[in-house]
Amino acid sequence: MKKIEVNLSDRHYPIYVGRGLLERLDLLQPHIVGTTAVIISNETVAPLFAKTVAESIARFVKVEQCILPDGEVYKDLRTVKSIFDQMLAIPCDRKTTVIALGGGVVGDISGFAAACYQRGIPYIHVPTTLLAQVDSSIGGKTGVNHPLGKNMIGAIYQPKCVVADVDTLNSLPKRELVAGLAEVIKYGLIRDPDFFDWLEKNIESLASRDPDCLEYAIERSCLNKARVVELDERETGIRAILNFGHTFGHAIENNLGYADWLHGEAVAAGMVIATEFSRRLEMLSADDSARVKRIVQRCGLPEFPPAWMTEQDFMRAMAVDKKVDAGKIRFVVLEDIGKATVIDQYPQAVLQQTLAAFLPS
Amino acid sequence: MKKIEVNLSDRHYPIYVGRGLLERLDLLQPHIVGTTAVIISNETVAPLFAKTVAESIARFVKVEQCILPDGEVYKDLRTVKSIFDQMLAIPCDRKTTVIALGGGVVGDISGFAAACYQRGIPYIHVPTTLLAQVDSSIGGKTGVNHPLGKNMIGAIYQPKCVVADVDTLNSLPKRELVAGLAEVIKYGLIRDPDFFDWLEKNIESLASRDPDCLEYAIERSCLNKARVVELDERETGIRAILNFGHTFGHAIENNLGYADWLHGEAVAAGMVIATEFSRRLEMLSADDSARVKRIVQRCGLPEFPPAWMTEQDFMRAMAVDKKVDAGKIRFVVLEDIGKATVIDQYPQAVLQQTLAAFLPS
Repeated sequence: MKKIEVNLSDRHYPIYVGRGLLERLDLLQPHIVGTTAVIISNETVAPLFAKTVAESIARFVKVEQCILPDGEVYKDLRTVKSIFDQMLAIPCDRKTTVIALGGGVVGDISGFAAACYQRGIPYIHVPTTLLAQVDSSIGGKTGVNHPLGKNMIGAIYQPKCVVADVDTLNSLPKRELVAGLAEVIKYGLIRDPDFFDWLEKNIESLASRDPDCLEYAIERSCLNKARVVELDERETGIRAILNFGHTFGHAIENNLGYADWLHGEAVAAGMVIATEFSRRLEMLSADDSARVKRIVQRCGLPEFPPAWMTEQDFMRAMAVDKKVDAGKIRFVVLEDIGKATVIDQYPQAVLQQTLAAFLPS
Repeated sequence: MKKIEVNLSDRHYPIYVGRGLLERLDLLQPHIVGTTAVIISNETVAPLFAKTVAESIARFVKVEQCILPDGEVYKDLRTVKSIFDQMLAIPCDRKTTVIALGGGVVGDISGFAAACYQRGIPYIHVPTTLLAQVDSSIGGKTGVNHPLGKNMIGAIYQPKCVVADVDTLNSLPKRELVAGLAEVIKYGLIRDPDFFDWLEKNIESLASRDPDCLEYAIERSCLNKARVVELDERETGIRAILNFGHTFGHAIENNLGYADWLHGEAVAAGMVIATEFSRRLEMLSADDSARVKRIVQRCGLPEFPPAWMTEQDFMRAMAVDKKVDAGKIRFVVLEDIGKATVIDQYPQAVLQQTLAAFLPS
């Protein structure tokens, strides 16, 4: 087991990465203060792991469960409201600990519910998808979608700890595992060139769930994310690089109504578009651009947005992106493999040409 | 004009108290960073003051308005959702500043909307009721009610500044002004005995809106609140004394469905009950207890809960109060005029006898 510390003064917390961690009572106990814990999970994940987690902590707290429907389409205020209804009916108090057991959607919703329940109660992430283990469970971004934009409603609210059990990935559908690799690749691209080299050698092993490779990739991803979050918890600057591929990716998800594509799939296509944008801005070489495209292809992740999308579909969705500042859409681009930067000055024509290259004429 | 600083490290902010402040562009300008401001107000307050505020800031930002229906019954997630809908339609970005113009309800809802919109945008309180000027606009408590409990959903999220214009109280209905006095009296009772003495001399002048008396009482109330909030922003300890009278008061409001009584009226009755509880616990003298009752009477504020309420109505509502810790209802009681403390150990029979003294047998 590896332990990675997220150093945020009074809000610091550990991330544990390893195998067989769900049974590890000793990891959770120090982070649960009250007498009640509520496991928030979904219909798909709960049957697989909720019993193990519940038994692991039932020895020292009362355990309740709140099971949500599965899917990004349920990541909305209505679901958060249903959590409040259940927690108040129990009733949970200000020392109740929320345990978010599931993927990114469960984590984002549960973290936001914890942030707002009685103005904030403690919560723990137990991510069970690759995407959640390497990305969404770390850094305190919580929230839900709005019909007009993804993650438009939320809070920056840090968990008390994150327990990433690599074994939970064995039951993850292949498509979801691969979608998670998009975020893993992202860390290599934005700030860790050696990791990207390693990924180019090991991407097939990861896709076929080699446990040692997975554990290493998760640990290294968490380390990258933790270091960025520590520098800029509230995303006033450098943290924005974590959104590499996400501005285009969110536009795809928004146009799909947050259905059909997985988040990681949209990010993969978004990274390819952002890479092409970087190349057309003459910031990135054609060779490096080809490397990005190639690793996405090797994963079997999409490089193109849905064929029916138009430039207008992109522009409309990106206009309400959180990275918009004073009406300007900001983009994360690559200066090199392993080096990302944020720009808000660029020729509009290059953006249009980039999008055109990915859209049927 | 007086300026009171709330010292909360990187979240510190000024409170301005004085007359004619709505026109004071210079006060607001340094606290508005982006290019757009949204005035959130309600149907009653907006016609009185929104134009003045809008004109005051329209010289340097684009001003939008979001007008809510008036009343505590609208302080719910549905209203917050409608604010998000409007802000996303504008669209507001992460640097948009929310200006909460109105009483406690507008302030609590707007602050919570600002806390959650795109994971947190800046906001400014412009309180226009006495209660909001002396209490709810200071300290960052934001949130909405749930059918099962008051303020059960919310965030601790500090404003960028508070502008309390005493002139706005001229148009405040007498009943609301008097309700605000309950919170003013509270500061004297919990930590400022000299202020309580002053209030005993000046309570009628306050009720008849003597502007100098009002300005002094508001300033002193803000000072008291600021000093407590600075010690304990997230209410893990001492800040709980600000809830003196509120546990009983919230139970009254909850049983009324947050209608009919004003918050300050419920707090007044709650303070009388909490004072009687303190006396029956032999913590407070009968003389001091009588002083509390007398000043509440002189304001014309209620001393008794609605006659139809039962002990069970109180106990059920208090069981989901945020001050409940591990199933124990905690109470703020008085050890003296000007000295409050929090207890969770008390004979249940004394609590029952106290409630019985206020309820028809």
